[in-house]
Amino acid sequence: MTHTDSTTISRAGVRYGDPDFVLGATSPVIEHQLRHRSVRAFLPTPVTEEELQAVVAAASSASTSSNLQAWSVVAVTDPERKRRLSDLAAQQKFIVEAPLFLVWVADLDRNHRLAERNGKPLDATAYLESTLLGVIDTALAAQNAVVALESLGLGSVFVGAVRNHPEEFADALGLPPRSVAVFGLAVGHPDPAEDADVKPRLPQTAVLHRETYDAGTADAGLSAYDERLAAYNRAHGLTGAWTERVLARLAGAAALGGRDKLRDILERRGLPSR
Amino acid sequence: MTHTDSTTISRAGVRYGDPDFVLGATSPVIEHQLRHRSVRAFLPTPVTEEELQAVVAAASSASTSSNLQAWSVVAVTDPERKRRLSDLAAQQKFIVEAPLFLVWVADLDRNHRLAERNGKPLDATAYLESTLLGVIDTALAAQNAVVALESLGLGSVFVGAVRNHPEEFADALGLPPRSVAVFGLAVGHPDPAEDADVKPRLPQTAVLHRETYDAGTADAGLSAYDERLAAYNRAHGLTGAWTERVLARLAGAAALGGRDKLRDILERRGLPSR
Repeated sequence: MTHTDSTTISRAGVRYGDPDFVLGATSPVIEHQLRHRSVRAFLPTPVTEEELQAVVAAASSASTSSNLQAWSVVAVTDPERKRRLSDLAAQQKFIVEAPLFLVWVADLDRNHRLAERNGKPLDATAYLESTLLGVIDTALAAQNAVVALESLGLGSVFVGAVRNHPEEFADALGLPPRSVAVFGLAVGHPDPAEDADVKPRLPQTAVLHRETYDAGTADAGLSAYDERLAAYNRAHGLTGAWTERVLARLAGAAALGGRDKLRDILERRGLPSR
Repeated sequence: MTHTDSTTISRAGVRYGDPDFVLGATSPVIEHQLRHRSVRAFLPTPVTEEELQAVVAAASSASTSSNLQAWSVVAVTDPERKRRLSDLAAQQKFIVEAPLFLVWVADLDRNHRLAERNGKPLDATAYLESTLLGVIDTALAAQNAVVALESLGLGSVFVGAVRNHPEEFADALGLPPRSVAVFGLAVGHPDPAEDADVKPRLPQTAVLHRETYDAGTADAGLSAYDERLAAYNRAHGLTGAWTERVLARLAGAAALGGRDKLRDILERRGLPSR
């Protein structure tokens, strides 16, 4: 099932911003994955019902912890509702422009309703473990959805800012307790005029460890990566390299857009993260 | 890019355990995703270095919040180390049998080391938001890895039990503070003798909501799903339906295999989830 292919080797090089990086094994599916980029400009063409169902079938095909399937997805197409959600998520305009906004929800409430109907306790949802389990199930499903929608010629971008105001977001979507919007996904047909491309990632030596974690080896390639990302940014009218962006993004609570209150909010929503 | 195909329609029906479910749009990539199943029995054939690099390149191609790339992966092949990790993760024997055990790590320490070298504060890692961000980045990357490895003829199974004893797991792998193993992934060539197939998932009506969350519509299909999962279990020598398994798995702290202590442990590891 493996083969080498000069086109694909080149795609792996683009992925890492490193012309010398080549893959010794690949597949058509991996070639497809290597081409991923976030899309933030969309044509008005709607996403069809058939496309939506195919994307959800891919999401359903992801693994799930103990088959609990602790996720739900809300498909939003109503312009007024998209505008309200955009207002709550840092006013990002592509939420309004995209014909479809998928809100991915870590959902422990479905299981809780099941327990209530059966007159049984379901106390494990109070622990951080269960919140993480729901978030993991949700992320696995959503990533499968992204791979699927790109195979249909669609594009998307994740929106973490749905965690800026989780209670207002839950109100706007009628989310039950014991559930929280983990991220949004703006979906549509990519506008070919958008100035964006495959963004280089950290080299494999920085993320892949052998047998045990080795910080020295991992960090040796970070300065070269800073240069690669700065070159990508310059080519697309952006400034800065990786290091300064990381340091700004994680400096402190003020940089979190309100998400420093997430734990208290989750507690009020029935997920106390004990 | 879309087409209908009777073979694929059948695969979507298998995915939901519902012969009447058909897809009106699909692609070769979606057909590939619909075939996913967890593999818990492996041949001794090793995973090659070329295959590992291709799988990691797919993982690197997933989206990541603000390009922080807050994940790492430790590739374990040493039999003694796999045995130790298996002992810590509910003695699951496929961890030892699989030629490759990938441990996926939510890693805020790389960014922290970057800040230390630059003499800057990096205080946002103390918040639950940052732990979730790391877990999300890790899950997106790992799901891309699963899709990729299956395209190379390999199989895998996620191992959430790496969260049963996070500190001992970190010691065995030399993980730094501000990092935690989120899940393992046992990888290898599937043993064709394994008695397992594509497991039916909740119907789309249970997970896909339109505009707002609708618990009544979502839960209407759960009893039919219980019957479908019970039929799958009977066909593979297992007992029970979905409801009883969910209720047992989430009944209370005692069912969490030690993971009810996860929050305290993360705090000791430098991720206090404020």
